[in-house]
Amino acid sequence: MRAAELDAADPLAQFGAEFLPAEGVSAYLDGNSLGRPLRASAERVQELINGAWGTGLIRSWDEQWMAEPLRLGDELGRVVLGAGPGQTMIGDSTTVLLYKWLRAAVALDPRRSRIVLDTENFPTDRYLAAAVARETGAELVWLRPDPAAGVSPEQVADAVDGRTAVVLLSHVAYKSAWLADLPAITAIAHEAGALVLWDLCHSAGVVGVALDAADVDLAVGCSYKFLNGGPGAPAFGYVAARLQDRLEQPITGWMGHADPFAMGPDYRPATGMRRFVSGTPPILGMAPIADMIRLIERAGLPAIREKSIKLGEYVIAEVDARLAGLGVRVASPRDPERRGAHVTLAHPAFREIYRALWGEGVIPDFREPDGIRLGLSPLSTSFAEVEAALDAIERQLR
Amino acid sequence: MRAAELDAADPLAQFGAEFLPAEGVSAYLDGNSLGRPLRASAERVQELINGAWGTGLIRSWDEQWMAEPLRLGDELGRVVLGAGPGQTMIGDSTTVLLYKWLRAAVALDPRRSRIVLDTENFPTDRYLAAAVARETGAELVWLRPDPAAGVSPEQVADAVDGRTAVVLLSHVAYKSAWLADLPAITAIAHEAGALVLWDLCHSAGVVGVALDAADVDLAVGCSYKFLNGGPGAPAFGYVAARLQDRLEQPITGWMGHADPFAMGPDYRPATGMRRFVSGTPPILGMAPIADMIRLIERAGLPAIREKSIKLGEYVIAEVDARLAGLGVRVASPRDPERRGAHVTLAHPAFREIYRALWGEGVIPDFREPDGIRLGLSPLSTSFAEVEAALDAIERQLR
Repeated sequence: MRAAELDAADPLAQFGAEFLPAEGVSAYLDGNSLGRPLRASAERVQELINGAWGTGLIRSWDEQWMAEPLRLGDELGRVVLGAGPGQTMIGDSTTVLLYKWLRAAVALDPRRSRIVLDTENFPTDRYLAAAVARETGAELVWLRPDPAAGVSPEQVADAVDGRTAVVLLSHVAYKSAWLADLPAITAIAHEAGALVLWDLCHSAGVVGVALDAADVDLAVGCSYKFLNGGPGAPAFGYVAARLQDRLEQPITGWMGHADPFAMGPDYRPATGMRRFVSGTPPILGMAPIADMIRLIERAGLPAIREKSIKLGEYVIAEVDARLAGLGVRVASPRDPERRGAHVTLAHPAFREIYRALWGEGVIPDFREPDGIRLGLSPLSTSFAEVEAALDAIERQLR
Repeated sequence: MRAAELDAADPLAQFGAEFLPAEGVSAYLDGNSLGRPLRASAERVQELINGAWGTGLIRSWDEQWMAEPLRLGDELGRVVLGAGPGQTMIGDSTTVLLYKWLRAAVALDPRRSRIVLDTENFPTDRYLAAAVARETGAELVWLRPDPAAGVSPEQVADAVDGRTAVVLLSHVAYKSAWLADLPAITAIAHEAGALVLWDLCHSAGVVGVALDAADVDLAVGCSYKFLNGGPGAPAFGYVAARLQDRLEQPITGWMGHADPFAMGPDYRPATGMRRFVSGTPPILGMAPIADMIRLIERAGLPAIREKSIKLGEYVIAEVDARLAGLGVRVASPRDPERRGAHVTLAHPAFREIYRALWGEGVIPDFREPDGIRLGLSPLSTSFAEVEAALDAIERQLR
């Protein structure tokens, strides 16, 4: 089927109009790095500056902002993460939250000092695990999956034992888009008595995540990809309710104190999720996330996932039909059940040509050494855009 | 002189029109907690959402945003901090930066494991020093200044020695507004071979800070008070150039890597200030700071400080004349050379009446047990506002 027909049959097609237009951009396929702004967010931010900030002034902290990291966290948990209330917060960066969660996880049980992780995980995850290992004496246990695939339950089963503190994995791999079997791997880690910490950066908002149902312990993710929070928007973190009062995070500011305005001599962590908040909540930066959560709820995550898979299948079919002969390889899983929402293509010339693509308003991203990632954001990406991108790649390679 | 005359003679009076109006607010005296938004910031944020984010999309990272934490940091350094280029970054929260800087400071020299700090410092500073002490084995050495004053050079001289790693102090005390003698204390710490870490939250933008001239080692501060960055805006951090390549911070994400897009197996810190960046820079949240830096440059810090002192003297003279008899006490230093940009008044009834003040659009803040802080932001606060607030307090107490 041609792109125009697929767009005509797309039940989510009308959601494209919710996003601000991007003049001169004929195909935006990097929503897996930076999602596009919603029209509603431009308005919300303006209202926030004039209203809650400019007129409410300091009163807005008492009336709404102090609660915002957990209130918006609960919304994200309900709509996107499959998490009941009181387990999700918004704040910091993914980097800082990973540090806090890893430190908390390795401190939980002195008999468990190993962090299991994989060589294909995002650099920040690997660097932080190494940093936490250095400072705490924890050991790293490396899984080495096939770069085109990802970590399997069997690999995890072979690596975990009574010495494992935590298994740190990405739900969707940033390079290959491999979609890990989150429920199976979580269960395997738990059988060995270990915690799991899932990095949801590339899955939140586009792949169903059911943290409570899978009994996940810890999760983090960013909000600027498929949650359209804007460049460098605050991250989100999840800690299962059953663990909250047993975990200690190292960055203890007054915002995580049981009674912050008492400003007393000693730090006493709040009960529940609040103790994981460190600095003053980034109100302006978290505003757009709320709009995208609302849009995801209107569209429904199952419909989003269905379109995501269709977009991916369309890419792969087109590559097979007209780019494979030019040497382009699909570097993502072909099985849609094991693939997130981007498709990575590989070709030795991609490092040269992606800048030319950008110049003509076709915007995927490039990952060393030879990968172009086509990020498919189901609520903003049309099949016609994908077709335009594939046309442009084909022209560049001919 | 009456407030109207003082306003008429105020060379900075016209700057009030640069801020968005706050309907129903007759006196905003909490700019030391949350500065008011600039009109220019409302426009800048809108342009950012439509332009660099909505149209530039991922290209804006390459073209401007990757450099923004250090570019804007340099601007802040030049205009506000007296810091040469390459020593200031914007990002994280004050809490997270304090943690990073403290960890780096205590790790520098194994023979030095003491943190000198004072009981009147802001809770976050005290809690983080305690947390870092617990996890690194550092010891805390507590200074106990008079709550109405602050830490003197003599107190610091008595506390530092060859075991001191770092002296952590606030430049302006959050409760009393005591303005510490930054150059003298820095020199005393250096004579003992220790580092100094200054918390500039309550001084940046309103009191002259000359970090390079005073040979300061480390500093942090928030941008939502006198830098008008908005609720929970990112913090700033300073590391003297001579120290940067010798200090290691614990939260090592890909953004601080020497070659982030290589995404290689091991963390290798960037040279210079870049290594202190952790997560993805918070672009939306840092946008308003740029406008306030520009406004401060137009007005000039000496003129800002001069008006700040005049506002403070006006408050104290009025309190002496008409509130002292009602039991109101000035809990800030009377010497303008030792006072920052807020004046704290104390009265047992203040806990009761500050809510009533808020209700009538007169907005200072309250600090336990009996303090009302009058925050005086020279570029947005008029003498008439201060008069209105003092009138309202007087009415409430009669």
